[in-house]
Parts: sequence; structure tokens; C-alpha cells
Amino acid sequence: MPHDALVSRTTLITRDAADPLARFRDLFHMPDDLIYLDGNSLGPLPKRTVERMQQVVQDEWGRLLIRGWTACDWINAPSRIGGKIARLIGAHPDEVICADSTSVNLFKTLAAALALKPGRHVILSTPDNFPTDLYMAQGLIRHLGGVHELRLVDGERIEDHLNDQVAVLLLTHVNYKTGRMYDLAHLTQRAHACGALTLWDLAHSTGAVPMDLNGAEVDFAVGCGYKYLNGGPGAPAYLFVARRWQPVFSQPLSGWMGHATPFAFDPVYEPAPGIGRYLCGTPPILSMAALECGIDLLLDADMQQIRAKSLALTDLFIQLVEMRCAGYGLELMTPRDHAIRGSQVSFRHPQGYALMQALIAAGVIGDFRAPDIVRFGFAPLYLRFVDVWDAVDRMLHILEARAWDREEFRQVKQVT
Amino acid sequence: MPHDALVSRTTLITRDAADPLARFRDLFHMPDDLIYLDGNSLGPLPKRTVERMQQVVQDEWGRLLIRGWTACDWINAPSRIGGKIARLIGAHPDEVICADSTSVNLFKTLAAALALKPGRHVILSTPDNFPTDLYMAQGLIRHLGGVHELRLVDGERIEDHLNDQVAVLLLTHVNYKTGRMYDLAHLTQRAHACGALTLWDLAHSTGAVPMDLNGAEVDFAVGCGYKYLNGGPGAPAYLFVARRWQPVFSQPLSGWMGHATPFAFDPVYEPAPGIGRYLCGTPPILSMAALECGIDLLLDADMQQIRAKSLALTDLFIQLVEMRCAGYGLELMTPRDHAIRGSQVSFRHPQGYALMQALIAAGVIGDFRAPDIVRFGFAPLYLRFVDVWDAVDRMLHILEARAWDREEFRQVKQVT
Repeated sequence: MPHDALVSRTTLITRDAADPLARFRDLFHMPDDLIYLDGNSLGPLPKRTVERMQQVVQDEWGRLLIRGWTACDWINAPSRIGGKIARLIGAHPDEVICADSTSVNLFKTLAAALALKPGRHVILSTPDNFPTDLYMAQGLIRHLGGVHELRLVDGERIEDHLNDQVAVLLLTHVNYKTGRMYDLAHLTQRAHACGALTLWDLAHSTGAVPMDLNGAEVDFAVGCGYKYLNGGPGAPAYLFVARRWQPVFSQPLSGWMGHATPFAFDPVYEPAPGIGRYLCGTPPILSMAALECGIDLLLDADMQQIRAKSLALTDLFIQLVEMRCAGYGLELMTPRDHAIRGSQVSFRHPQGYALMQALIAAGVIGDFRAPDIVRFGFAPLYLRFVDVWDAVDRMLHILEARAWDREEFRQVKQVT
Repeated sequence: MPHDALVSRTTLITRDAADPLARFRDLFHMPDDLIYLDGNSLGPLPKRTVERMQQVVQDEWGRLLIRGWTACDWINAPSRIGGKIARLIGAHPDEVICADSTSVNLFKTLAAALALKPGRHVILSTPDNFPTDLYMAQGLIRHLGGVHELRLVDGERIEDHLNDQVAVLLLTHVNYKTGRMYDLAHLTQRAHACGALTLWDLAHSTGAVPMDLNGAEVDFAVGCGYKYLNGGPGAPAYLFVARRWQPVFSQPLSGWMGHATPFAFDPVYEPAPGIGRYLCGTPPILSMAALECGIDLLLDADMQQIRAKSLALTDLFIQLVEMRCAGYGLELMTPRDHAIRGSQVSFRHPQGYALMQALIAAGVIGDFRAPDIVRFGFAPLYLRFVDVWDAVDRMLHILEARAWDREEFRQVKQVT
């Protein structure tokens, strides 16, 4: 009900009762009186994960010790979990593997992509891409002797810069600051039309936005396990390599777990036949066990329902903030257009840092992003419409009280 | 008591009673009737870890969510844990950081080392180095355009091959197959004398052998968290960079966690001032919490006592196998000389695979390594002298019964 002036806390409670995803909230640990609008930074703890962690620690590692690698199939956790992630992003199970961090996976896939385009020297991206994407590209370029160039262009003008110099288009599907979402299929098609490859960072969209990587003919992608997949702090990441590129091996992190026969202990590297060659070291089983619980939970939900509720929650939040908090200097940064909005809403505010500190103190957890952005993530599996009302309610009280003037909220406590 | 013919199960029980490390065994979960001689592959579960994992999952992630990064100091886990590992290897706390896998850390440090020696093209190693060390070097060389060479020479002839072509001497301190240990200080000094740098893989020695990296003036090192540190399956690894090399930054995996100010979200990479620049992605907090428990436990013990008991256990095992299992075709591969022995004992046996399967079925867990090696690790914190007696006892029964002829033990179940 966008822009319905008759919305009230009561109508939202009714709306929650009719929500087809309502049953999922109870599957998470959610501290009382907390409105958690930061699942795009770190998803909450699924209740099932508590039990599973005890199992993997005590029954598997504790009782079986080294035998767990076969008896509990730890050895196949990267491909098994990858295959589950594939279902969330429209990929074949043998195109995705769970491994390392998003940053390390960016290095592997970007190196592989560049090697496939030896005559081209440009990595095309945007200055507002998530920093680690840019940093990893910068490191790779330096490492390769500086023959490549990271060309950063306005996100609205990408197509103008796709030409025969471009080896790889490196974009994050949903922008971490603004929530703006690119048209993945269209830009992939445009990149291909000029002979470039695509590498998509899906950190802020996996599990929140339906995707069809195969339908869009995406070449490479990476994504994060600890946001909408609810895999826990620093959960392992994943990478996607389209089947057609897998046999053309060039990822530089050629570790033993990516070897065709790791336990033959051959001194010469020979890549595993498929996506497995993108593994490197021994997989972190405890962290992967937690991640798998988060993914299993998400696979029980319908991605179309998730998307519909995500848009409804973000619509509602924008509507209520603009109605109830008008005149307090909040400026919407997130697109109103559904087609280009992810699952988060950001506002600028001159006292953004102190405002977010005050919100956190009031039990509304979001994120601050320099210089002046307050960012709110909306994860449809555990958020209710009434939570949106209550969050705006608490924000209004803070704005009315000008709480950012209080010293306790102005002290920068952020990790640096 | 080497080669004491009067050794008996009873004398060993007496010896255990006098063991200054005896109290540590009870700090581990150890399945009844299991003799675990594979702590050099995967260390057992410390009891404290069970409690800590519940805490980090439920109280930290579950209750604090994103706030855990500061409130629980997750953000400093890599440097805090690194600083603890430093105490085990004779390094300054600011020279070690916990991150990624051993393989990924090899890539970072080897790339950094090569960049410091631009006029030299040889990485010197041995054909029996742990395969991932060789694979990562091969991948890096390919990635850098093939101007470098991985030169593999006999481990007994390394000094003959140290010349002005050698950029880096890449060795594993204790060999994974044979348990042979190199003289780290001497070879480091010899490498430096010819102008080369050293990169030591300490996977099979960290926590089992006292080390003084600073005393030996080692340049770079990497090590593993899931062996003698008892950090759990696929636990995060670590890396060491001597203070003198830290300002000369060149590691290619320049991710956001290694940035000077990651939360400024600057688009241009600027390395953190010290060892932190060797971080890349978001640290895996759940796996790191488990690892830290294992390390804390080890820090309560005396490394000199650990080494003394390790040598006594391996001496006893060699003595008992050679006395009691003589004539069954077992051939010792591990050096008798204490100065060049790690904390494991390996024998060749023509039916090595089936022999190890039979041992595992009899509750003696070791490892098989192709083509014919049975390998036994001796971790002094939880192994008793009487365990050595019982392990040899069970092995003798298997040898007498020629159990390797049984079909169930001949079927290759090993992960491939």
C-alpha cells in the first residue's frame, strides 16, 4: 500500500498476520525489543544453527576427529554448499563453490577473467563500488606489472564506456551505500556485445533479490555468506564461474584443494576438472556448517515472496519516514523505482553518525556510512511490517529530541 | 629411556604418572578406547572450545549481532590471535596475523618475497615439500608470466643450490611424510649469506617444536591452525612477516581488511601500517573463536616440556615397533637423530594402506600417505606413554593376523 495515508500500527499488524513469510521469523534468535535493520551487514542467528554448531563441534570433530572428512562429508562441503547457493542465483550446481572470502574470490575470478582477454587492458567499474572490489583490482593490476587499468566511471554512464578496450565489467549488483540495483541482464548483454566479460559482486543481493545468472549469461560472480544468507560473522563466501569458462583454467591461487587428486600428493599442480579448481586451501568446516544452516533456511522460502515483501517493506519505510519525519533534514538516497532498488534504504542526514548512534541506543540497529549516510537493511524473513512502524516511531522521537546533540552519540566509536 | 629392554606397560603407567604435562589430557575430548596418533592432521577438540563456541554463537552473534565486531572485539581477532601464535614461534606479536588458509598465506608471502628480489628468478624448494606449497608457487609463477622458476632439489643438498639466482628459499620445517626437520636457523643463515630470503612453512612444527624465528632472522613464514594448535577442521591459518619487511608492502591480495582505514570506504587502497596489511577479507569469527581456544590451551604449557615429551614418545614408539614388530616389513622413514626429527614417526610397509585401515578399525588413528607410508603423529598434550604401548600392541596383533589381506581393509576409502 504505497503512500496510503491511512497506514497505522494496527493496519500493519493485520498485514503481518497475512504475510506468507511470517512463519520464518520464529526460526531466528532475535533479541527482545530490538529492530534489526542491519541484516545486510550481518544476518541474525538461525535457531537451527545453534544445534548444528553443537553437532559439528561435539559429535563430528569431537567424536570422529580426522574421520569427519569422509564420515561427515566435510570434504564436499564447498561443492555441496555451492550447489545450494546456485539455486538462489539461477546457476547450475556445478557452477558455484563455497570458499575463502569475497575479496579472495574476487582476486581469483578477476585474474581468470583478465587472462581470457589478453588483448584488452581495462577493468571497468564505478568509483562507488564496494571498496574491496576496487582494492583487489588495484592489487591484481600492480601484481601483474601495471599493464591493466582500473577505469572508474559514473554508474549511470557505464554503457558509454563499454568499448573494445574493456576486458571485464566489474560491478556490484546492489550498491552498498545507496541500495541502487543495476540491471544485471542488460549490462551483461551490453558488455558481451562489446566483447567484454562480466564479474558481478552479489554480496548485497544474494538471498534478497531473485537472480538468473544463467539466463543473463553472466561469466563470473562472487558473493558473501554473512549478509542475507545469515551464515554468521565472517562466514565463507562463494564464487560462480559459468560452465563455459571452467575448462579455461587460470586462477592463480592454485592450492591443493583445487587439485584434480589432492590426496595423491603429486608435486605438480593439475587443476580439478570443474568448479573445484577454484578451491585453494582446506575449507573452514565450522564456519561452513553455520553458513549451510542459513542457506537451508532461505531455500525453504520463495524468492519471489521474499522480493515482494522486501519491496513492500522498503516502500513502507520510505513512505513513513517521509510522512512522519518530514522537515528533519533526511534526504532519500535509494531509488523509488522498484526495478533499480535492492533490499535496503539509505538517507543522508547532516548528523548521520550521531543519528545512527541514537537509533542504536534506542534499539534500532542500522549502519552509518561516511560521510553522512544512515542505512537500513530489510530482510523479509524476520522483519515484520510493524517493525518498520516502530523503527520510524523511534526515529521520530530522536529527531524531535535532537538527540544527536548529546555527547554520547557524537563520540566516534566506529571501528577504524 | 631409549632402547630400554625392560620397558613394559606397567613402567609406562608409572612414567605417565610423573609426566609434568599429564594434566592437559583431561582438557580434551578424547573418545574412549581411541588412540589418536593423527593430531598432526587434525588436533582433537578442547573441552573449553565447546563452551566458547556456544558463547560466540549464542551470546555474541545471537544477542549482539553486528555490535559484536566492536563489543566482542571480533575486529581484532586476527591480530590478537596472531600475537598469541607469535609466542609459540619466537616472534614479536606485531609480526604474526591469523588469516585465510595456509595456501592463501603462502601466495601472499611468496609474492611479497619475490617482489623484494627483482633481480633473482629462482624459488628454491624440494620435491617432497608439501604439495600445496609447490602448487601455490607454480600458480604464482604462471600468474607472473613465467619469468620465475621453481627449482626443486634434494633436501640434503639445499646448500649446494643456494646461489645468486635464488630469490626465496621455500621449505617446510618438518616434512609431512617423513617427520624430518630442517635446521631452520642454519638454512636461514645460509640463504641470507647468498642474498636470498626465506619462507618457512611451519604447518607441521607450530605447537610441537620450540622455535625462535626472530633469533634465526627468518623473513617470512606461514602455518596451520588445525594441527598441533587444535583449532578445528579447516581452522584459519597464520602468517609471519619480520618487522623489517613489513613497510615494503607488495602482497597482491589487497583487500579491505588490510586497508589503513577500512571503514572510511576510500576507493583507493592504502595498506595498513603493519602486519595488518596482510589481511584481505572479513575474518571468519566462528572458526577463529575455536582456534583461539586451542592456542590458549597450548600457551599454558611449556614448549620445552612439550618438545622433551614429544621426543620421548617418538623414541618409545620407534623402540617398541622395532622390538615387538620386527620381521613384519616395517621400515623406519623418520630420522633417529633428535636434532632433525619433528613430532611424528613414519614407516614404510608394502601393505601400508590396508595396514592403516586395519589400525583405524582397531582404534589406532594414524594416516596413510601414498605410496606405502603409515604415519603417526605424537602430540604431547593429550598422549600418554601407555597409549604408545597400546598402539604398538594393537599393531602387532594386526601384523600377526596379516589383517591387510581382509577385503574390508583393502578397499580404498580415502578421499580423492
